[in-house]
Amino acid sequence: MSEGIAHYQVGETFDDFLLITSATKSIASNGKPFLALLLRDGTGEIDARLWAAKKEDETLFKKGVIVKVNGEIGQFRNKPQLKIHHIRQAQEGDNVEVKQFVEKAPVSVEWLEEQIKEFMFEMMNANLQRLTRYFVKEYHEELFAYPAATRNHHNYVSGLAHHIVTMLRLAREIAGIYPEVDKDLLYAGIIAHDLGKIRELSDPDSPTYTTEGRLLGHISMMVEEVEKAAKELQIEGEEVMALKHLVLSHHGKNEWGSPKTPHIREAEILHYIDMLDSRIQMMNNALQKTKPGTFTERIYPLEQRSFYKPAFHSE
Amino acid sequence: MSEGIAHYQVGETFDDFLLITSATKSIASNGKPFLALLLRDGTGEIDARLWAAKKEDETLFKKGVIVKVNGEIGQFRNKPQLKIHHIRQAQEGDNVEVKQFVEKAPVSVEWLEEQIKEFMFEMMNANLQRLTRYFVKEYHEELFAYPAATRNHHNYVSGLAHHIVTMLRLAREIAGIYPEVDKDLLYAGIIAHDLGKIRELSDPDSPTYTTEGRLLGHISMMVEEVEKAAKELQIEGEEVMALKHLVLSHHGKNEWGSPKTPHIREAEILHYIDMLDSRIQMMNNALQKTKPGTFTERIYPLEQRSFYKPAFHSE
Amino acid sequence: MSEGIAHYQVGETFDDFLLITSATKSIASNGKPFLALLLRDGTGEIDARLWAAKKEDETLFKKGVIVKVNGEIGQFRNKPQLKIHHIRQAQEGDNVEVKQFVEKAPVSVEWLEEQIKEFMFEMMNANLQRLTRYFVKEYHEELFAYPAATRNHHNYVSGLAHHIVTMLRLAREIAGIYPEVDKDLLYAGIIAHDLGKIRELSDPDSPTYTTEGRLLGHISMMVEEVEKAAKELQIEGEEVMALKHLVLSHHGKNEWGSPKTPHIREAEILHYIDMLDSRIQMMNNALQKTKPGTFTERIYPLEQRSFYKPAFHSE
Amino acid sequence: MSEGIAHYQVGETFDDFLLITSATKSIASNGKPFLALLLRDGTGEIDARLWAAKKEDETLFKKGVIVKVNGEIGQFRNKPQLKIHHIRQAQEGDNVEVKQFVEKAPVSVEWLEEQIKEFMFEMMNANLQRLTRYFVKEYHEELFAYPAATRNHHNYVSGLAHHIVTMLRLAREIAGIYPEVDKDLLYAGIIAHDLGKIRELSDPDSPTYTTEGRLLGHISMMVEEVEKAAKELQIEGEEVMALKHLVLSHHGKNEWGSPKTPHIREAEILHYIDMLDSRIQMMNNALQKTKPGTFTERIYPLEQRSFYKPAFHSE
Amino acid sequence: MSEGIAHYQVGETFDDFLLITSATKSIASNGKPFLALLLRDGTGEIDARLWAAKKEDETLFKKGVIVKVNGEIGQFRNKPQLKIHHIRQAQEGDNVEVKQFVEKAPVSVEWLEEQIKEFMFEMMNANLQRLTRYFVKEYHEELFAYPAATRNHHNYVSGLAHHIVTMLRLAREIAGIYPEVDKDLLYAGIIAHDLGKIRELSDPDSPTYTTEGRLLGHISMMVEEVEKAAKELQIEGEEVMALKHLVLSHHGKNEWGSPKTPHIREAEILHYIDMLDSRIQMMNNALQKTKPGTFTERIYPLEQRSFYKPAFHSE
Amino acid sequence: MSEGIAHYQVGETFDDFLLITSATKSIASNGKPFLALLLRDGTGEIDARLWAAKKEDETLFKKGVIVKVNGEIGQFRNKPQLKIHHIRQAQEGDNVEVKQFVEKAPVSVEWLEEQIKEFMFEMMNANLQRLTRYFVKEYHEELFAYPAATRNHHNYVSGLAHHIVTMLRLAREIAGIYPEVDKDLLYAGIIAHDLGKIRELSDPDSPTYTTEGRLLGHISMMVEEVEKAAKELQIEGEEVMALKHLVLSHHGKNEWGSPKTPHIREAEILHYIDMLDSRIQMMNNALQKTKPGTFTERIYPLEQRSFYKPAFHSE
Repeated sequence: MSEGIAHYQVGETFDDFLLITSATKSIASNGKPFLALLLRDGTGEIDARLWAAKKEDETLFKKGVIVKVNGEIGQFRNKPQLKIHHIRQAQEGDNVEVKQFVEKAPVSVEWLEEQIKEFMFEMMNANLQRLTRYFVKEYHEELFAYPAATRNHHNYVSGLAHHIVTMLRLAREIAGIYPEVDKDLLYAGIIAHDLGKIRELSDPDSPTYTTEGRLLGHISMMVEEVEKAAKELQIEGEEVMALKHLVLSHHGKNEWGSPKTPHIREAEILHYIDMLDSRIQMMNNALQKTKPGTFTERIYPLEQRSFYKPAFHSE
Repeated sequence: MSEGIAHYQVGETFDDFLLITSATKSIASNGKPFLALLLRDGTGEIDARLWAAKKEDETLFKKGVIVKVNGEIGQFRNKPQLKIHHIRQAQEGDNVEVKQFVEKAPVSVEWLEEQIKEFMFEMMNANLQRLTRYFVKEYHEELFAYPAATRNHHNYVSGLAHHIVTMLRLAREIAGIYPEVDKDLLYAGIIAHDLGKIRELSDPDSPTYTTEGRLLGHISMMVEEVEKAAKELQIEGEEVMALKHLVLSHHGKNEWGSPKTPHIREAEILHYIDMLDSRIQMMNNALQKTKPGTFTERIYPLEQRSFYKPAFHSE
Repeated sequence: MSEGIAHYQVGETFDDFLLITSATKSIASNGKPFLALLLRDGTGEIDARLWAAKKEDETLFKKGVIVKVNGEIGQFRNKPQLKIHHIRQAQEGDNVEVKQFVEKAPVSVEWLEEQIKEFMFEMMNANLQRLTRYFVKEYHEELFAYPAATRNHHNYVSGLAHHIVTMLRLAREIAGIYPEVDKDLLYAGIIAHDLGKIRELSDPDSPTYTTEGRLLGHISMMVEEVEKAAKELQIEGEEVMALKHLVLSHHGKNEWGSPKTPHIREAEILHYIDMLDSRIQMMNNALQKTKPGTFTERIYPLEQRSFYKPAFHSE
Repeated sequence: MSEGIAHYQVGETFDDFLLITSATKSIASNGKPFLALLLRDGTGEIDARLWAAKKEDETLFKKGVIVKVNGEIGQFRNKPQLKIHHIRQAQEGDNVEVKQFVEKAPVSVEWLEEQIKEFMFEMMNANLQRLTRYFVKEYHEELFAYPAATRNHHNYVSGLAHHIVTMLRLAREIAGIYPEVDKDLLYAGIIAHDLGKIRELSDPDSPTYTTEGRLLGHISMMVEEVEKAAKELQIEGEEVMALKHLVLSHHGKNEWGSPKTPHIREAEILHYIDMLDSRIQMMNNALQKTKPGTFTERIYPLEQRSFYKPAFHSE
Repeated sequence: MSEGIAHYQVGETFDDFLLITSATKSIASNGKPFLALLLRDGTGEIDARLWAAKKEDETLFKKGVIVKVNGEIGQFRNKPQLKIHHIRQAQEGDNVEVKQFVEKAPVSVEWLEEQIKEFMFEMMNANLQRLTRYFVKEYHEELFAYPAATRNHHNYVSGLAHHIVTMLRLAREIAGIYPEVDKDLLYAGIIAHDLGKIRELSDPDSPTYTTEGRLLGHISMMVEEVEKAAKELQIEGEEVMALKHLVLSHHGKNEWGSPKTPHIREAEILHYIDMLDSRIQMMNNALQKTKPGTFTERIYPLEQRSFYKPAFHSE
Repeated sequence: MSEGIAHYQVGETFDDFLLITSATKSIASNGKPFLALLLRDGTGEIDARLWAAKKEDETLFKKGVIVKVNGEIGQFRNKPQLKIHHIRQAQEGDNVEVKQFVEKAPVSVEWLEEQIKEFMFEMMNANLQRLTRYFVKEYHEELFAYPAATRNHHNYVSGLAHHIVTMLRLAREIAGIYPEVDKDLLYAGIIAHDLGKIRELSDPDSPTYTTEGRLLGHISMMVEEVEKAAKELQIEGEEVMALKHLVLSHHGKNEWGSPKTPHIREAEILHYIDMLDSRIQMMNNALQKTKPGTFTERIYPLEQRSFYKPAFHSE
């Protein structure tokens, strides 16, 4: 395979395999039908147009299909667009499979599993540790496959576990600096807080919101899971209520979808750790694509700000 | 008993039984101790001062105690205040009990029970009807005892059931005018929407917020109850998700504590019926104490507005 | 005539009469001129393109003209678009007229008139009844022709009267449940509240905002009408002031264009009845076009929410 | 008479005539009745306490009565308070009358009348000039007696006319700098904009809000007056609509009670001139009581800001 | 030269010199490359398309180049667009230069210089006068060349000085009406308030934001300049602090980028004068292009309002 | 000395030395003068009343004086209040001095100095290191004496340095987890961000806002200091601009007083570290005074929330 779609410049010719992640039939302003495709590999994605598409093309080139594409990188409304010269479905002998074309966390699943195990091992409160262990066991497969979000940050395979582990590392250091903090409650809250996304999103590879996700939301769904776990484990201490509260309040404000604002110290800290990790990841993503001495594109969830990359950082 | 504390004017002498609903020891600006009491009977409440309180008075005159009081109605900061001349605990032979002194719904519990039964009988969808019947049976006692809120509206014994029944009556008429409305879902949502208050509030007579209530809120607690009921009744249809959504979204906005805004027609209607009934009750309460041709006091939860009572209403 | 433009699918051929409601000359990205038309019949509307339009086409195909169109239903930016093969002006013998092509209320004008008459008959307060009768008589023609808005809800011929009658039906039931409510004032307020739209909008069939409408607004204009009616009828009671207040405050909030918020009980109720009827109509419109088990499009004036149509509704 | 209540310091003895502007019967924390009075002369006002008030004192010392007071200036909650040693009603021979005790504009009524006449004389547009002349004639007495507000700024006798004249002077200069501005429309708008206060407020000397004022507001009432004037003068030009718009929109924002925001250039300018004059008056009032090198008290309607009085201003 | 691009109608042929202010290479929906140009002369600007652009066209037709263009005025998305038939670079003998094609203030630089000199001459406070003189001398060239903003108002050569002089004229009249106002401080604040734009913007002719401008803003940069001037002039009085405060607070609100809200009278007045001048200029610009009896386009920084141009203005 | 004022209960007798931090002469509602004092020692503060105060008491008992007090702990409006029986000024032989009575950071100045030295030693970028070293040297005394705020958090002697050091510790760990972060810029920003408080506040022991502080604010003043330092050290790199930006934007939002929002990654992180440290300190302060199983008082700067202290934390 070539070095990946993200590294091509306008004017270059592309000739390699890509995964179709979206396919829409449209009609051009001159009245002719075409297929608007969104294609990707592990490095990024690109819009593409298959002009003068035939009836059978619609059947061949659907979401989820791997294709061999030959075309030229053009530009449309300031974004690169691939003008397709030739396209065909991948075949048996091509030796390509879907998982080669999706983005993955920059660390291995094994390392993530190992980390979460270590953090759980640090916990002293039996009730919180048992609840946490229950979640990690019960949702093991999804936890290490799902993204943390459909876009913006940690929106890749294992993104959920990667987000959790980074937050746990921040929590460990914060608890080291402020010994009053209940590390066990904070760890349990971090591991649980976004697990509801497993029900809110359809699948790990090209996640969309489920009906249940849109009507109930991951926060409410996870509170139910905590209740279910507590019942099965026959845990009745105040820890169950506290953990539910951490899940409920982790968005920090009513306006951001938490029915309760944080009213336990560790809930407040959990919210800030969540903000820190997601914001740093978004800034890092944008800055990595930016030349020193210039600004990033506007980052929508960071209040549409652009960030400057100082030249002296590179010294 | 006399006609009730609410009907006394400044300058009159009061001599009857009252219930202490709050008692605080304070020190006057001249340095002398006194007891600040909040006293009530079925018609209303009044602030009172027991000047030059002795040590033993603190033990005698506590929250929940019925007292015989003799004193004069004065005024302090524009509010009536009872200056106590003589006070004693009620005794055996006085034949008074606490339930005589609390405010009750203006309709009987029997009528409320009958009404709810009728509305449930109208329901056609078996799943929603079974869920609703489960709640009414499971929480029967509290449902007909609890207030709908600690203050502002329906804050009296059976207030919760009174609020529900009035909302159901509104729902029946609205569904009559708009036949597209799913009456069953709307009825089920109305009956369930505030039942979580049974766990959010400590008790029906002088309710305060429980710790669980402050940390989780009646909305999240009620979603758990719906889940529990569905499990026990082995109901798995989409009705369970829809009913949870109606409960979750009934405050209408994220800022008002709903983690999801209404995304089902009946959820939106439920929110407006809830607003209508609570707002009309608050206006009626205030207007009833107001002379035609004048304005009510400011009503805090109605954006601090005063309402004018036209003179011609009385024609 | 065929079954109406709203029932055609992409790919089908259309061949029938339509009314031009908007016509704009444009230049395609390949530099060639075309006419962008908006065409409608009683069932709905569709965008259309007349490619390679000639000079005389601009004169023939203007707003308000009925045309016979032959073409194919295509799609552009996810919306259906009619690609015109052949188009001509309607002729004498075609037997079509404009009123066949505009949307009308789902009930007859006669029924609406009858209803309003009945509601007025219920009124007991002579001043309010006379004022109301004056309005219905004075603006009779427009009242039963105008829409209640240019878009979103009740935006069809007789929409204003349809909105008023439905609100009156809600008011009757609400007043039945809360006997304290002054039904006469509420009825009068409902009938008057939006009548200013008759001056705010240019005409009933394809209404646009008048200059006066944009500078003064229907609320202020209607207050003037109440004053004028009171003068002509020589009514001097407090009812005039109260009715003006209901008109002034019916948007409920300063931010929504009411110079005063509701300060009379019936004003507050009027605002909520207005919200209920307009919101239910918008949800019903959207849900009617939606399959069970899916979500509607985002509804802009409902805070851009989509609504879910449960599958079990159809049982 | 002495130099006026505003010039007394804490600890000094006061012995002179004052006007009672408010009288409230209260009960002290030691249980004894007292009268809380608000007293004023032309220089300012002071709170006063008549301890151990007798029954007949309530009848003697009411709002609107002039009294001879002897007492000492004390302090209560950081505000001066007059402790009354001796008080009596003014008598025939005292030669005092109410108008000596109210605050008046710093310019004479004659000068204000002269000014307004001159500005009207400058107007060229006959319709606007006739409308303006009508208002000045029709409401002549009130225009030169009413305050512009009950508190904050221009809250003194003739305050309304003083506010109008200062705004007209600003308008003349602004129109001189921007020749595109329609001076006639701006003058007419300034003279009309707050005239509705004549109906909104009860009387010029100790104004309170009328019922009509609270339910309709001076903006809507003045629009009616413009309509009435136009009818009587048989003026039908666009000037009537424009003048109504200037009145309607002069608060500048919906949130501030204007049902329409400014949509005519002169309406926008009118709003800013109104802001400038009221804000400068409030700052001047506060700064005049402040020593150089210190800050004023917080001014509530100026977003609760305090203003610094530089020392070098006094050079 | 012809009368200028702003005066051409759709359908007319244009044949004259224009300056390229922006040039972007794009690909049409039919896959062919074209150049999207923004062209201007002293009267206004127009979008243009050079279809079927060749490789060398990109080098010839760049930002800053003057071209001779022959083409036809078409329309695209309701805006005029020039379809280029023929285009060439301007040559020696054409006798055109860039400064003929940029917009300039409607008054001469000499007059602006004269005015500022006069206003400085009026100042009595030596410290403020010396600081002001320093700025005018130090930044003389830029002050009379820079625009006051990149768009919306005073966005032309010498716009900054034009804005300052108009504000000074308003200040002089306001200080005449309110003698308490410190005219010297107000003048100094007006001259200084926007000078930081000289560092915030790249250059006077086609200004963009500098990196420093985006990270620090003209407000903070100007405070530094005041400090630097005070140091060099060895001025230590309170005037330096006051002047910095006027600069800091001139946006009026924290939300609008002022780290402090106005806390000196002249700071508050400066903010309102700034608002008045910028708002009147924007309204005048829009109204000048509008026919009497119609509305302007929406003006984005005026809360997206359109303004009505009354017909009687023209009388 | 006794164990400190913070440990006394209502009803107990206090007899020890305290520092007067505020003294106000007032008049009781019975007309008698008294002194309202605010007294403190190293453990906390208490309101006190000296009833029947004599003229000379005002001279003896002023802010800053140490007194020997004998009295009884009472309660007024739910807060403890000391009723003074006997009071005298401290004398020579009492061996008490002011610094014994002020609150101090829970760590030593030496340790704070050592820490800051270490963090500076870690820095690699010469420009940032030199700037930082300059600040620490230039403001050495104040840096280790001033509080970080006048109330809410780190409002004690050395609070500023304590806040800085804790933030640096957080920064070190965060930079360890995200290697992309420029640790040097973040350290420099943390050390500089609040140094302007040295000019904003009057003195370290009982700080009030200076005039300059109220008019310019610590943010703008610190930007000037960075400029001054850069000039003196002849540093011209982009680091100066970046450091100014971190100072300017550290409040995170315009509404919170930052004229620019963060537009450099380290500025965003600095803002979050500042929030984390101040919020955790406020929660810890409140929770420390709270029994397990109960809620803290409302914490005003934490959006008025109360925090629950779980019982299981104590395990």
